[in-house]
Amino acid sequence: MQPRALIFDVFGTVVDWRAGVSAFVAPALAARGLEAAPEALADAWRGEYQPAMQRIREGGRGYVPLDDLHRENLDRTLEGLGIAGAFDAPARDALNPAWEALPPWPDVLPGLERLRERFLLAPCSNGSTALMVRLARFAGLRWDCILGADVARDYKPKAGVYLASAAALRLAPGEVMMVAAHDGDLAAARAAGLLTAFVPRPDEFGTGEPETISQQWDVIAEDFGDLAERLGA
Amino acid sequence: MQPRALIFDVFGTVVDWRAGVSAFVAPALAARGLEAAPEALADAWRGEYQPAMQRIREGGRGYVPLDDLHRENLDRTLEGLGIAGAFDAPARDALNPAWEALPPWPDVLPGLERLRERFLLAPCSNGSTALMVRLARFAGLRWDCILGADVARDYKPKAGVYLASAAALRLAPGEVMMVAAHDGDLAAARAAGLLTAFVPRPDEFGTGEPETISQQWDVIAEDFGDLAERLGA
Repeated sequence: MQPRALIFDVFGTVVDWRAGVSAFVAPALAARGLEAAPEALADAWRGEYQPAMQRIREGGRGYVPLDDLHRENLDRTLEGLGIAGAFDAPARDALNPAWEALPPWPDVLPGLERLRERFLLAPCSNGSTALMVRLARFAGLRWDCILGADVARDYKPKAGVYLASAAALRLAPGEVMMVAAHDGDLAAARAAGLLTAFVPRPDEFGTGEPETISQQWDVIAEDFGDLAERLGA
Repeated sequence: MQPRALIFDVFGTVVDWRAGVSAFVAPALAARGLEAAPEALADAWRGEYQPAMQRIREGGRGYVPLDDLHRENLDRTLEGLGIAGAFDAPARDALNPAWEALPPWPDVLPGLERLRERFLLAPCSNGSTALMVRLARFAGLRWDCILGADVARDYKPKAGVYLASAAALRLAPGEVMMVAAHDGDLAAARAAGLLTAFVPRPDEFGTGEPETISQQWDVIAEDFGDLAERLGA
């Protein structure tokens, strides 16, 4: 088992979306004297993520980039928190780039630097190319290219996203390893023929509890440094 | 006129395909005792480039990545040079990655480093994502993402390639500047609404003669360092 490329889940696995979104929206809440906790807004906004993609996965809606889904989801989120009246459309537009301003977990940059010596590296996220490019600039991530939802015009965990990502590199699925903190992402990647690596991120949801895993993944690593170590990079 | 992203023609503008392909094929010719000049093979191979893409542009053939066209073109090239008998299929397969091993012109790496401080940077080439990724590793190019033919599943100078590349960054065509050593590439980019920058590469074809330009492009720069200077980067 020696992959030629590693592709990464991003939200939660590479970057801390909860801390990033919270920090981004906090000033806007404070400026309006709102008592809603920034973390509550981040959690509620993220809570709309899977349902919004599900209609597209099922074919009930054509492909819409995640940037636009985030913006639609923000409307629902603000309604749900009872603070919709405090944000007009331009104020909402100004909040949407929160998803491009997410900090990497502390082990990510040194880990990727080591992994880069040995493997091609790309995100395989449900974020669009545009979102991933701007997030990479913010977080200092150095990718070889951007793979994921835009390449397949569909959303993980649909098999086509993993397969189109491998095909874009002209690699067989078995030459590509999916790295994720999410068991379901890895299950779908494995079903599509990819290698799999699990890296727990117990702080993703602020609970201190990593996700439970359902299978023995090809690699289980503590963090990206340990992943590099285990892959001989 | 202040672009937010610069997208680049690659073969000829960023890298010296003639020197790279010649150097890559030279040992294979020598090992077979063939008298064909490596540059003649490079020129003949490149000569098949436009006709191969033309059928796809016209819709007479579905999208086929350039890697595969290069391999088909190599068969024709070796026939044309009368040396087809010296290369079996595996030997031909081994020559095809010549297009992933092309050196950048001397001003490219320092120029891109300056431009990167101010703009998003991506190739907008007829090369596939896979080819561009491996070429970037070889040449040390640091791109934000890979745009071009694969994104549009069509070939420049079709307008869709420029438009799909801008759209992938969620930018308007007028926020993106196409950089090329080729007048026709810029004419098509301008017609699609992009900004344009011409950088002459008089040594592309080994003649010392830069391409004649037909229009006053938005920027005309001596090299990538001068381009950075003129764009205030």
